Amino acid sequence: MIVSCCINGEIVPGTQASIPVSDLGLLRGYAIFDFCRTAHGKPFLLEKHLVRFRRSAALMELPLNYTDEEITKLVYDTLEHSGLQEAGIRLLLTGGFTPDSFTFTEPTLIITAEHLALAPEKEVQTGVKLMSHTYLREMAEIKTTNYSEALRLRHQVKGQQAYDILYHHNGHILELTRSNFFIVKGQTIITPSDHILKGITRRTVLDLAATVYKVEERAVLWHELAEADEAFLTGTNKRLVPVAKVDDQQIGTGKPGKVTLHVYQLFREFEKNYQPGYSFA
Amino acid sequence: MIVSCCINGEIVPGTQASIPVSDLGLLRGYAIFDFCRTAHGKPFLLEKHLVRFRRSAALMELPLNYTDEEITKLVYDTLEHSGLQEAGIRLLLTGGFTPDSFTFTEPTLIITAEHLALAPEKEVQTGVKLMSHTYLREMAEIKTTNYSEALRLRHQVKGQQAYDILYHHNGHILELTRSNFFIVKGQTIITPSDHILKGITRRTVLDLAATVYKVEERAVLWHELAEADEAFLTGTNKRLVPVAKVDDQQIGTGKPGKVTLHVYQLFREFEKNYQPGYSFA
Repeated sequence: MIVSCCINGEIVPGTQASIPVSDLGLLRGYAIFDFCRTAHGKPFLLEKHLVRFRRSAALMELPLNYTDEEITKLVYDTLEHSGLQEAGIRLLLTGGFTPDSFTFTEPTLIITAEHLALAPEKEVQTGVKLMSHTYLREMAEIKTTNYSEALRLRHQVKGQQAYDILYHHNGHILELTRSNFFIVKGQTIITPSDHILKGITRRTVLDLAATVYKVEERAVLWHELAEADEAFLTGTNKRLVPVAKVDDQQIGTGKPGKVTLHVYQLFREFEKNYQPGYSFA
Repeated sequence: MIVSCCINGEIVPGTQASIPVSDLGLLRGYAIFDFCRTAHGKPFLLEKHLVRFRRSAALMELPLNYTDEEITKLVYDTLEHSGLQEAGIRLLLTGGFTPDSFTFTEPTLIITAEHLALAPEKEVQTGVKLMSHTYLREMAEIKTTNYSEALRLRHQVKGQQAYDILYHHNGHILELTRSNFFIVKGQTIITPSDHILKGITRRTVLDLAATVYKVEERAVLWHELAEADEAFLTGTNKRLVPVAKVDDQQIGTGKPGKVTLHVYQLFREFEKNYQPGYSFA
């Protein structure tokens, strides 16, 4: 739930956070976003999210008329207004008001502080089941707001008692609806390199894992799933979750693997020791 | 400009028409729409737009909890509230409020009455230039709100002094950002059949043209453009506009062709004689 929302610099309670119907973000899906969260009450890896947010905006030709410092300040202000300790922080840049449902005028920057629902510890203990679906996200490398395929399939996901959808295309494993995917073979951790959204948690996990394991970013073929010893997913609001099953196919022993749980611990330690490189306290 | 807006049955002035930031239509691009217009102050071909609107909703798994008669009544009420004689009428069905930026609860139905900007007569006299771009719309047959590629390319369109973008993919001509495309060879009118949004004006033009000319709905190859005698586009707020040029390639004589202008006249006559099959006067 959105607790506080900053719209073009003005902070309002979440219940009052609204945009005109005549916003290109609504009428034409012309919007990019990023999503980070707090750790110990402070934004976690915000500087990396800002790099990606700015890149998404540039690739989408959406002007972002704020410096990183200005956005960071607004994030801190919105967080403070919300009173939340554990929060999801959404940065949303929309096409803004359009007089005729198509012409661009000025973008709108929205920052929200939301209740955070981190993946529960239970799922880390048991692993989750995924449903596979053939799909290639349009402009996968840009974090656009286009998630209609994932929403459209919500009934199927529920029907199959799946945790999420694993997209694949032309025999290549890609990503989940809002997470990245990894397989483990022996002491090697492998994750798709292309046609995916490059996750911040993905990057952090790869960097941490590389200190202990061999890591590979490359095309991952569908048949490699059958040969995998372990599999897991990563995401900002999920950290790292072991994958026990894809459709009816059991991964490895069907239980969270040693490498997966070790990398999870490395990530938890990193998070515990994390300090933002800036402060507006 | 939106003059009047009906949100879940409640009509407000356009200046007050807003939706919560926590709408899946904004946060996740989970929304479908349709767009029709008035002729002689009454909705034009609304019954056909409703068929397509309902089909888009069904394919996108978005519940549309209104009958056609209820929606038609709301359209008439919104039009009356707006006081507009010549109006664009938008039907928008969004994913509605989400508590956590992903979970679906209830859809939101939005109906707007907007100032209508029909393509000026000048363009019918001279023809327009198009810019080509390789792109296959995701779920092209569903009228989703995803037009981000078109908006992203707005600077290129302007730079090339083009009227719009002609999408093509794998050597096949597809459609424009918000219009359908036709070529004419001799007495035959040809238009792409697949991976396009099936326009209401497209259908009407094909039906009218078929009384005089041979019409073909089929795959249209890129190289057929060079062999075309004429080309034109159709759209709800454009009627029919001749195409004189695609990139640097002149179509036929580079002037609106005889068949094109004849079909335009057939359409204008049809529009002149059109009477809605219902009334809430």
